[in-house]
Amino acid sequence: MIKKVVTLGEIMLRLSTQDHKRFVQSETFDATYGGAEANVAAAMCNYGLQGTFITKVPDNAIGQSAINHLRRFGVDTQFIVKGGNRLGIYFLEPGASLRASQVIYDRAGSSITDFNIEEFDIDAVLEGAQWFHTSGITPALSDKAAALTESVLKAAKAKGITTSIDINYRKKIWSKEKAAEVLRGICQYVDVCIGADTTLGFEPKESDVVDGRITIAGFKDIFKQMKEKFGFKFIATSLRESHSASDNSFSALVYDGSEFYETKKYDVRIVDRVGTGDSFASGLIYGLVTGMSTQDTAEFAVAASVIKHTIPGDLNHASLNEVLDLMKGEGSVRVQR
Amino acid sequence: MIKKVVTLGEIMLRLSTQDHKRFVQSETFDATYGGAEANVAAAMCNYGLQGTFITKVPDNAIGQSAINHLRRFGVDTQFIVKGGNRLGIYFLEPGASLRASQVIYDRAGSSITDFNIEEFDIDAVLEGAQWFHTSGITPALSDKAAALTESVLKAAKAKGITTSIDINYRKKIWSKEKAAEVLRGICQYVDVCIGADTTLGFEPKESDVVDGRITIAGFKDIFKQMKEKFGFKFIATSLRESHSASDNSFSALVYDGSEFYETKKYDVRIVDRVGTGDSFASGLIYGLVTGMSTQDTAEFAVAASVIKHTIPGDLNHASLNEVLDLMKGEGSVRVQR
Amino acid sequence: MIKKVVTLGEIMLRLSTQDHKRFVQSETFDATYGGAEANVAAAMCNYGLQGTFITKVPDNAIGQSAINHLRRFGVDTQFIVKGGNRLGIYFLEPGASLRASQVIYDRAGSSITDFNIEEFDIDAVLEGAQWFHTSGITPALSDKAAALTESVLKAAKAKGITTSIDINYRKKIWSKEKAAEVLRGICQYVDVCIGADTTLGFEPKESDVVDGRITIAGFKDIFKQMKEKFGFKFIATSLRESHSASDNSFSALVYDGSEFYETKKYDVRIVDRVGTGDSFASGLIYGLVTGMSTQDTAEFAVAASVIKHTIPGDLNHASLNEVLDLMKGEGSVRVQR
Amino acid sequence: MIKKVVTLGEIMLRLSTQDHKRFVQSETFDATYGGAEANVAAAMCNYGLQGTFITKVPDNAIGQSAINHLRRFGVDTQFIVKGGNRLGIYFLEPGASLRASQVIYDRAGSSITDFNIEEFDIDAVLEGAQWFHTSGITPALSDKAAALTESVLKAAKAKGITTSIDINYRKKIWSKEKAAEVLRGICQYVDVCIGADTTLGFEPKESDVVDGRITIAGFKDIFKQMKEKFGFKFIATSLRESHSASDNSFSALVYDGSEFYETKKYDVRIVDRVGTGDSFASGLIYGLVTGMSTQDTAEFAVAASVIKHTIPGDLNHASLNEVLDLMKGEGSVRVQR
Amino acid sequence: MIKKVVTLGEIMLRLSTQDHKRFVQSETFDATYGGAEANVAAAMCNYGLQGTFITKVPDNAIGQSAINHLRRFGVDTQFIVKGGNRLGIYFLEPGASLRASQVIYDRAGSSITDFNIEEFDIDAVLEGAQWFHTSGITPALSDKAAALTESVLKAAKAKGITTSIDINYRKKIWSKEKAAEVLRGICQYVDVCIGADTTLGFEPKESDVVDGRITIAGFKDIFKQMKEKFGFKFIATSLRESHSASDNSFSALVYDGSEFYETKKYDVRIVDRVGTGDSFASGLIYGLVTGMSTQDTAEFAVAASVIKHTIPGDLNHASLNEVLDLMKGEGSVRVQR
Amino acid sequence: MIKKVVTLGEIMLRLSTQDHKRFVQSETFDATYGGAEANVAAAMCNYGLQGTFITKVPDNAIGQSAINHLRRFGVDTQFIVKGGNRLGIYFLEPGASLRASQVIYDRAGSSITDFNIEEFDIDAVLEGAQWFHTSGITPALSDKAAALTESVLKAAKAKGITTSIDINYRKKIWSKEKAAEVLRGICQYVDVCIGADTTLGFEPKESDVVDGRITIAGFKDIFKQMKEKFGFKFIATSLRESHSASDNSFSALVYDGSEFYETKKYDVRIVDRVGTGDSFASGLIYGLVTGMSTQDTAEFAVAASVIKHTIPGDLNHASLNEVLDLMKGEGSVRVQR
Repeated sequence: MIKKVVTLGEIMLRLSTQDHKRFVQSETFDATYGGAEANVAAAMCNYGLQGTFITKVPDNAIGQSAINHLRRFGVDTQFIVKGGNRLGIYFLEPGASLRASQVIYDRAGSSITDFNIEEFDIDAVLEGAQWFHTSGITPALSDKAAALTESVLKAAKAKGITTSIDINYRKKIWSKEKAAEVLRGICQYVDVCIGADTTLGFEPKESDVVDGRITIAGFKDIFKQMKEKFGFKFIATSLRESHSASDNSFSALVYDGSEFYETKKYDVRIVDRVGTGDSFASGLIYGLVTGMSTQDTAEFAVAASVIKHTIPGDLNHASLNEVLDLMKGEGSVRVQR
Repeated sequence: MIKKVVTLGEIMLRLSTQDHKRFVQSETFDATYGGAEANVAAAMCNYGLQGTFITKVPDNAIGQSAINHLRRFGVDTQFIVKGGNRLGIYFLEPGASLRASQVIYDRAGSSITDFNIEEFDIDAVLEGAQWFHTSGITPALSDKAAALTESVLKAAKAKGITTSIDINYRKKIWSKEKAAEVLRGICQYVDVCIGADTTLGFEPKESDVVDGRITIAGFKDIFKQMKEKFGFKFIATSLRESHSASDNSFSALVYDGSEFYETKKYDVRIVDRVGTGDSFASGLIYGLVTGMSTQDTAEFAVAASVIKHTIPGDLNHASLNEVLDLMKGEGSVRVQR
Repeated sequence: MIKKVVTLGEIMLRLSTQDHKRFVQSETFDATYGGAEANVAAAMCNYGLQGTFITKVPDNAIGQSAINHLRRFGVDTQFIVKGGNRLGIYFLEPGASLRASQVIYDRAGSSITDFNIEEFDIDAVLEGAQWFHTSGITPALSDKAAALTESVLKAAKAKGITTSIDINYRKKIWSKEKAAEVLRGICQYVDVCIGADTTLGFEPKESDVVDGRITIAGFKDIFKQMKEKFGFKFIATSLRESHSASDNSFSALVYDGSEFYETKKYDVRIVDRVGTGDSFASGLIYGLVTGMSTQDTAEFAVAASVIKHTIPGDLNHASLNEVLDLMKGEGSVRVQR
Repeated sequence: MIKKVVTLGEIMLRLSTQDHKRFVQSETFDATYGGAEANVAAAMCNYGLQGTFITKVPDNAIGQSAINHLRRFGVDTQFIVKGGNRLGIYFLEPGASLRASQVIYDRAGSSITDFNIEEFDIDAVLEGAQWFHTSGITPALSDKAAALTESVLKAAKAKGITTSIDINYRKKIWSKEKAAEVLRGICQYVDVCIGADTTLGFEPKESDVVDGRITIAGFKDIFKQMKEKFGFKFIATSLRESHSASDNSFSALVYDGSEFYETKKYDVRIVDRVGTGDSFASGLIYGLVTGMSTQDTAEFAVAASVIKHTIPGDLNHASLNEVLDLMKGEGSVRVQR
Repeated sequence: MIKKVVTLGEIMLRLSTQDHKRFVQSETFDATYGGAEANVAAAMCNYGLQGTFITKVPDNAIGQSAINHLRRFGVDTQFIVKGGNRLGIYFLEPGASLRASQVIYDRAGSSITDFNIEEFDIDAVLEGAQWFHTSGITPALSDKAAALTESVLKAAKAKGITTSIDINYRKKIWSKEKAAEVLRGICQYVDVCIGADTTLGFEPKESDVVDGRITIAGFKDIFKQMKEKFGFKFIATSLRESHSASDNSFSALVYDGSEFYETKKYDVRIVDRVGTGDSFASGLIYGLVTGMSTQDTAEFAVAASVIKHTIPGDLNHASLNEVLDLMKGEGSVRVQR
Repeated sequence: MIKKVVTLGEIMLRLSTQDHKRFVQSETFDATYGGAEANVAAAMCNYGLQGTFITKVPDNAIGQSAINHLRRFGVDTQFIVKGGNRLGIYFLEPGASLRASQVIYDRAGSSITDFNIEEFDIDAVLEGAQWFHTSGITPALSDKAAALTESVLKAAKAKGITTSIDINYRKKIWSKEKAAEVLRGICQYVDVCIGADTTLGFEPKESDVVDGRITIAGFKDIFKQMKEKFGFKFIATSLRESHSASDNSFSALVYDGSEFYETKKYDVRIVDRVGTGDSFASGLIYGLVTGMSTQDTAEFAVAASVIKHTIPGDLNHASLNEVLDLMKGEGSVRVQR
């Protein structure tokens, strides 16, 4: 039977400039749709699982286009609720070399900020699911959205479904303090915590910060504290080195509560940086829900994310075999013909 | 000395689909900027006058792009205030033949809805101005925006500046009842009323409505009532026959309080329908502020609008001579080489 | 319960030139996917029914893209078979004014030409269906495809499902003689015959052909013979007057075996002519399967097709309400805002 | 043996705005290459004859691109000379409806203005040719170019080659007086004169001008005077009615020195107006050089030009059969599939 | 006298995705034309030689467009035969970083698969030629194409024309075994063998394979065996290190039967990887046919290929001087102004 | 009070190929406007100063578009003169990897070559200015332009305004000898000399040239001679290492007459190389006119230029804060969200 993974979050219209143009130069935008949890649902379908996404979009052609985008790539959208005022938007100006990518959020008042669990049939949504996933962005959107996130996590947990969260702290949406407070409340219902950093309030020792970056040792220390506090089954973080807006190195660290797993590190040239974190989360979920070893899970997640860096848009259109080949070192970068 | 025309209103990001695509098919949007009063300010510059536009835009690259768009076409943008949360957006799906153009407004919570007269130097803005113009859209945006509209009209009136309003009723923003109430309050400060219809509460006699359209006689009757009630110096309306989304006929009726002036009627094939009403208003203002006769003013306004139907975007990039040539029948539609 | 309409046929990659360019000028192609029966399935979804499409596509990214295109617009694609050698292609050069649109077929050897009923679960496909539809193009593709078409029609008929065919004679695929022979065999399993002309071998009287076109009287005569011969419940044809490649008039004639129904005639300016026949078929099926009167069904079908003329691509992205509004004369061609 | 037609003139880089944009809105240009006589040479190849074009282009990549454009469509470019300073440019802003198309010439100092007959092997160029063609634009470019035009016409004439000129008066390049003086000198070497109007100094009677347009009677009168003065074998003019920048009617009048031939009149919707006159000239030359009757020649020329109105760019990519079909009324404007 | 190089092979329509998009994301394709031997013919013209290409394309606008593409860049296309069913297509998804480029072939049943030597005048084609070139792809297309390849090689050989083949093994078209069998038969008529690897059945010693790649020593060993077996005058292979889909290193090894020549190694960032092998072959042929030394020939071939990596499309638009400058280290990568 | 910087020079239409295409492949051009001194004026506005640009453009829509482009980004264009024959054009083919970018100038006879100081009100232009800047390109355009440059520098100097020149030698416009002669005459009115090299006639010692590049020691030696000869207050040069057309290293050396200041060196991947020198000049002027220390000025100029390498078009759309952040090492190349 095909595994079912349910995700909850916001889907936004993404408007990005073309050909490295800055916002002030742009007279056209590429329009696509994405969001942390929608991206995860689509990745699940890509790997052959059932990805079900729950959100709320306005009842107009823009909302419908967001649904269509997910449907196109196989996502089960039957439970998406139509209503509310608007689809959130984010403007993206992709950077290059020593110019960073810029995101302008225009998501205030989006439909999901006024969404509650009574608006859909939570039992039907979770029916047959093995996994439920959300991110730290969803509770950041509004108090109502935070309550919704907690309710759904609680419901999933009660049904024995594995739950995960990708912390994904966004400084343009809420403060560190508010984030810590809300997320610590939510984390009691979470089995797998992704994107671990200081957001939940665990600080590395001073000696574990070098050049402003937390060391592996520092992450290990934080992971242990997180395990201690919330009882997570798995804790994972990607390790990114941003040499420039065009070149990054990418690897990961995973903790299963007893052992730590480090992965191979890849050098990647970037086509589209957005959504690579969601690809990492998707890879982790895929590995764990299909029973891979922790090391393989971590390697799969990193390889998935690495390929996403080369694909425009929020979604990761890498196939299962492409990720497996890269992870096993069996892929080739030669023209395939 | 160059005449100065000041306008107040919202400027929005306009996202339109390309090549006749519907929203659900679109993966790119043409991005430009416009709004009823911004369009009028730009037209003034186009005709060689000084157009000064006052609005509030967010202090980010999208707000700056709106300013730049106006600046590019000569508008005096020095008084535009930066602040608030977001730039209003409207999505445009241009229609064709028997499919109407669709507009989806996403303008709630835009910066101008939280804007008041203390935020800028009203005396400096109006210094040396001959004309002040706004539309019925601005007071529709929020109660605060309605108060602002009234304050600025009052200030202009107090300085002896001619004032005008383009009624521009938008059913997707407010109800007929609310519109009538607010606009009737504002109209006491208005000299020239454009776009006259039933919004202000004056209804045509039953016999003056044929096939759902108000007849010339009906408009004349309404105009007289409007003159009676508000003491407008000029009342004008364009007369549009929409044969399809691709073909319209266009003419106008103007009333100077004693005489009625009807214009030549043009058949136009449409490239871009949006902003053609603003072009009509711009033409009226240009004619009156530069001392044309009422008949010439009306003909100029209609000819300006007719050319705008062939130009993509909100702004009218027709030159003064092009409008005069068309109005005088001296233009040619042959290739100019 | 939502009505289910199943269709069988080929889906092709459509490569069309841009901006009125001829093939020899083109260095880019717009790429979309469509085919007579796929277009009908998508229209069903558009109107709120369940559209299920059965076909065979190659197991590569081009085949997957065809599936994705249908999935995006709501089509149930779960029964589509992957295999065979290639996706059929058609190149389209849209005409204008006195230059006709050109189609170059490159569909020989496509996956569906080597497809048989054992490759999918016909019972599952037809489970719960009210209607089965195909076109005269499918049996034209190969002898195997003709056998498949007959088998599926027979199976549907045996289950009491209403069956329809759109004759759609394509001279570039097969001869008139072969078409007549094959289609006459198939028609015994058909309830509703669309696109009636001389393909099935019924000729109009000489006096019923004026200027090379069959008159209404001629069609009525042919319809009666068709009814006589095959016992169709409904026979319908659209009536197109091609004033130019840019302007057509469009109406229809429907026969329910006792009465003839003529519709309103519309003048349409063309954005995209391809797929307008499929829109007419879709409208007929929608009307009949949802229980509209025959006159309303005919009017709905014509209105649906009229709107399709304004939409690029094979699929008809007109909403149910837009079609109903046009059909009832309640729509407006003014900007909707 | 394939007929050979030689033409002499300027080829320019054509930069046209996209999607009906005006110059001041444009941030991209479509770049193609054309010019009156180059367009004729390409049309000859299109119809299966040999078209040889002689010109001078700068020895850089822009000059090479002009050559490549002609070569792509079969023109014999082996005699084109490389040298001089620059390729002439013309900017094109296609009009629509009541807005005329605009051309801005930037052709001063182009390579052909400094070109003389010693720079190429005139005997080799004309070897085996049946026809030599040029236009009134070439002698307008510089005194040197006028001398070159006369020399080549004289050389062709001396070899018994039929010669033609398309008057093509361009007010942005030279005055009516200068044109008349230069062209009257050149016309002594011309057999076929196309585009007849008042440029050569023959004026219609006052009663032969109605609404600013010369009547058929007026043209006949002028033709007779032209025949009288220059001994032309054929004189032809297209008759264009410009209803708008989007819609024209098109027909022609040809005079063989004894009879006048009027053609069918077509209503055309315009995709690209530029080069339609050259298509008319091409059609005339094709008809005469291949031995069509004068009436057929005239009808062929008009049909060729009509199709060109629907094709973007300067060149006419209509095939011989397409023109013949339209001319004979055997074509169809239905989708060809 | 200008040297003449004749090539035989397939020309395909190449449809590539834009802006790094994957196939499943693409709604437009860039359309160009190319194929191993067509690319070589065009390169010859680029360097000032005469390149004559012989192939068979369908007699429709797509076939004509392929011809036009070659004609545009100077290729002699007069002997190309029109007929058969279709133009072969290949879909290209350019990779980036750690995602490899993907090619989907859709070339089965193309016109050239049903092509034989009687369809054209082989003597006229080879008249005055110094060189004949083909690739291992052509005999792979069909048994008939293999027979054709052998016949033409034999005919060229008989006329004393130097012959070359680029092995170019494509695993998506035929098996290693079939390739070895067919190519070994053909190689008896070949003077210069390019792209040497294990396809012809010569295996390197185990110690000559490091990290899955054949060492220089291994190639030398294979070259000697090839020389022994087939008596080739020259054997050459490019040496590519694929660091990623974006970055490669490129050099070459050439054997003249007695000495081995290694070239400079370049690091290249890739714009378009396809056709770079054909550029290498073109460079070799150019060097040998114009009498360069073997070392210079090898350096020229490598430099030509290096520049091709930066040019979109199949063809190499590098000029002779650009290649010479790079090869001599005299070029500059600074802006040339 | 806002500082005012006045610049004088040519503004050109820039036509660049898209997507790495070569000129001979291009059928569209990106159209923007720029020139050394216009770019500096725009950068001033970008950093919050007043940039006033003086030039002459033709009185047509292309000239107006150049003005609009500057106006859009805040430049004071009120003194720009309209007249003359044409706007200069430069064609740009952006290179990649080992293929250099190519510029084809088509600027002969542009309006500014026929421009003199009487055509505008020099006192009004310079009123309130702190700085006047031009480049060595302007006097290269014509003798009249050289005279104009000298006159304006002299006028500025007389008013106590700081003057600067960017040497910017362009071998495609004039000879080294002519440049040296003209520039040495002009330099007597210059305070700050940018882009120092051998153009003014100062040669480095042989031992100061390594691998064809002048060493730091060599530049220091040249700077001292320049100071000696012309009494410049500041002399500056950027130091570029062109690893390829895609990757450069960039730093600078500044001399204040007593000390030398070297900056940090950045590795940059190039999006658009044109205008980066003007960005360096702009940064120097900004630093000096706002009173930064020499070291900070140099670092600011380099950081500004580095960001420009990532921005398409001639103008530098980096904000003041972005430059300051990069210069201080406080920026981040991570996605800003």
